[in-house]
Amino acid sequence: MSAPPSTVTFLTDYGPGSEHVGALHLVVAALAPQAQRIDMAHDVPAHDILQGALLLARLAPLLPGAVHLAVVDPGVGGERRGVAVALEGGGVLVGPDNGLLGLAAETMGAVAAVVLDPPLPGRPATFHGRDLFAPAAARLATGADLRALGWPIDPATLRRPDLPEPEAENGHLRAMAAGIDAFGNIQLLAGPGELARTGMERGDRIWVALTDRRHPATVARTFSDVAERAMLVFVDSHGHVAVGANGRNAARRIGAEPGDIITLGRW
Amino acid sequence: MSAPPSTVTFLTDYGPGSEHVGALHLVVAALAPQAQRIDMAHDVPAHDILQGALLLARLAPLLPGAVHLAVVDPGVGGERRGVAVALEGGGVLVGPDNGLLGLAAETMGAVAAVVLDPPLPGRPATFHGRDLFAPAAARLATGADLRALGWPIDPATLRRPDLPEPEAENGHLRAMAAGIDAFGNIQLLAGPGELARTGMERGDRIWVALTDRRHPATVARTFSDVAERAMLVFVDSHGHVAVGANGRNAARRIGAEPGDIITLGRW
Amino acid sequence: MSAPPSTVTFLTDYGPGSEHVGALHLVVAALAPQAQRIDMAHDVPAHDILQGALLLARLAPLLPGAVHLAVVDPGVGGERRGVAVALEGGGVLVGPDNGLLGLAAETMGAVAAVVLDPPLPGRPATFHGRDLFAPAAARLATGADLRALGWPIDPATLRRPDLPEPEAENGHLRAMAAGIDAFGNIQLLAGPGELARTGMERGDRIWVALTDRRHPATVARTFSDVAERAMLVFVDSHGHVAVGANGRNAARRIGAEPGDIITLGRW
Repeated sequence: MSAPPSTVTFLTDYGPGSEHVGALHLVVAALAPQAQRIDMAHDVPAHDILQGALLLARLAPLLPGAVHLAVVDPGVGGERRGVAVALEGGGVLVGPDNGLLGLAAETMGAVAAVVLDPPLPGRPATFHGRDLFAPAAARLATGADLRALGWPIDPATLRRPDLPEPEAENGHLRAMAAGIDAFGNIQLLAGPGELARTGMERGDRIWVALTDRRHPATVARTFSDVAERAMLVFVDSHGHVAVGANGRNAARRIGAEPGDIITLGRW
Repeated sequence: MSAPPSTVTFLTDYGPGSEHVGALHLVVAALAPQAQRIDMAHDVPAHDILQGALLLARLAPLLPGAVHLAVVDPGVGGERRGVAVALEGGGVLVGPDNGLLGLAAETMGAVAAVVLDPPLPGRPATFHGRDLFAPAAARLATGADLRALGWPIDPATLRRPDLPEPEAENGHLRAMAAGIDAFGNIQLLAGPGELARTGMERGDRIWVALTDRRHPATVARTFSDVAERAMLVFVDSHGHVAVGANGRNAARRIGAEPGDIITLGRW
Repeated sequence: MSAPPSTVTFLTDYGPGSEHVGALHLVVAALAPQAQRIDMAHDVPAHDILQGALLLARLAPLLPGAVHLAVVDPGVGGERRGVAVALEGGGVLVGPDNGLLGLAAETMGAVAAVVLDPPLPGRPATFHGRDLFAPAAARLATGADLRALGWPIDPATLRRPDLPEPEAENGHLRAMAAGIDAFGNIQLLAGPGELARTGMERGDRIWVALTDRRHPATVARTFSDVAERAMLVFVDSHGHVAVGANGRNAARRIGAEPGDIITLGRW
């Protein structure tokens, strides 16, 4: 009876089914043929470090001991560092130090970090995912020590993405739309604590607004608690306050996109 | 020499490369690290139970012994049951009992079923894929007995999706467009038997219509049997009557979408 | 200690997350349960043999010993042959002989080839990916000899895709846009040799044009070498001359699509 092979996960803004995702898998399979490979997400909006950071921080804890390779890297080839970060649970984050890894490192607990040695000189400098990060992830998946991959740095120096703080007071909540899923549910950068501070409770009739236009909604536990096509405000499966609609697309209805500021209020 | 690891397949409307697909894989990998994981399809139109049911029924028989996890679940959190269904060939279907599993269960032969015990109380109720179905699939993939997962029910009580019956008579066929593939081929809810009943034979010049507008087509075996850009009616690789066009998009040409009623007739 | 399982890679124009991709995986998993399976790319534009051939030729060398299954097959069911091609590095290409495999075979070195025996008579003739190519790839992944799969042919008879030659002279380069990635970078069918022949050097201010409209750009090593939103011409990570823009979409800016002829020139 042998231990299960170690696992590499992939999170990028390369697009589902794209050749760049394929290249990462091929490089890892070539260098670490026994490793399992798992696609975490590849539909991060292009260059959206904040979305990538939020995604990584909520998905990586589902498989804490894995090597998590994340690439959303608008500054590739520039000054930003490439890093690997050892986590308390035994896992490692690998990717650019541009804020993408900061939230997950904070959530999961960083115990050590290195700046990755650059790929061989003379190699093209535009595809660090394939030439720098995937080889590092593969080496870690075959048991290489973090310190063999580069120069040690203080994990406290890792960049954190800029997150707007939610504003919550009695009868009122303002927060950023952090993400919108395939069904049009709008995830806000606010949690149950902020919702509690507004005093809004299950069953309350409230409004949701992106602009001046107020859309009626109900504070509820889940979709089936409201009428067909009605909007609801709920705590989603990641512990975020979210705006949805039963059987329709809430984001399209109010015109929201990731990064928008959404306001909830009592009538 | 050991048996190959057991396999979990995934069919959802979450969208290719989405974080929700990633979450299912991560949960299964965490609980059943030896299991193989295969993406069956993730581009089912959102909330389209009928399309999902048709897909599951034609793909699952390609790997009959696997655990097939399927989630198209507009009523998540409501009254519909979460179930696992043991199949004659040794495989299992796991997902919501809203019609999604009914066709595959019928095609492959259901021998037992259980209503899945709910996820731990206090957990958010909006992501049953991750919190209810994936853990159940993982436990089955590690050899857990179906009866350990929930309360036994009669497989005959599983819901079946509503399928419109095709109408076939001499020189005439009416059937629903069940699906449209990436190349614009329109798959009809009708088989070779219905086509035979129309008396149409290979080489016959017929018409295809969505509205009053009749488009010329030829009954053929395959694309290369008709002229470049010409339309054809053929029996597709899943045994469905289908409408295609040689080197162009038939669905776009006649304006068809899944769920539309298509008519074929002899001039 | 056992050898890692052999690997099957998949490159198609089926679309990411589509049921057709799922079907290939299921067939290979059923026939070769020990094989690893890797998605190379599934977003090849529909029926675009040239794009598929370029992709295959740059990705397959990343994992030279694998069985590479490629399907971009507008002529399915017609006269084109289905083939398997043994490569110098121990790998095999499997797919239609319509030009798709020709570049990779040339780049990696073909040592033998067979025309695949057709699928069982009476099977529908429209899904060779599932019924012909995937079973052949699976058999190869379990160690079957190439010669057991079909009739030997001379690898020199394999079709090559039609590639337009770049035109390079002093201060001037004309080449086809071979591909455009998710970030809008335009990859040209020209390499560092052609760029050298133009005499253009790093730091030179040049123009890029699709029509009469000339867009200013700089010859550079990587994105961060030019100002925010500025365009650059560089040698990309696959060794192609490419047109990009720092933090914006170059293809959208100049209106380029794959297959367009792009001109670069000195002011």
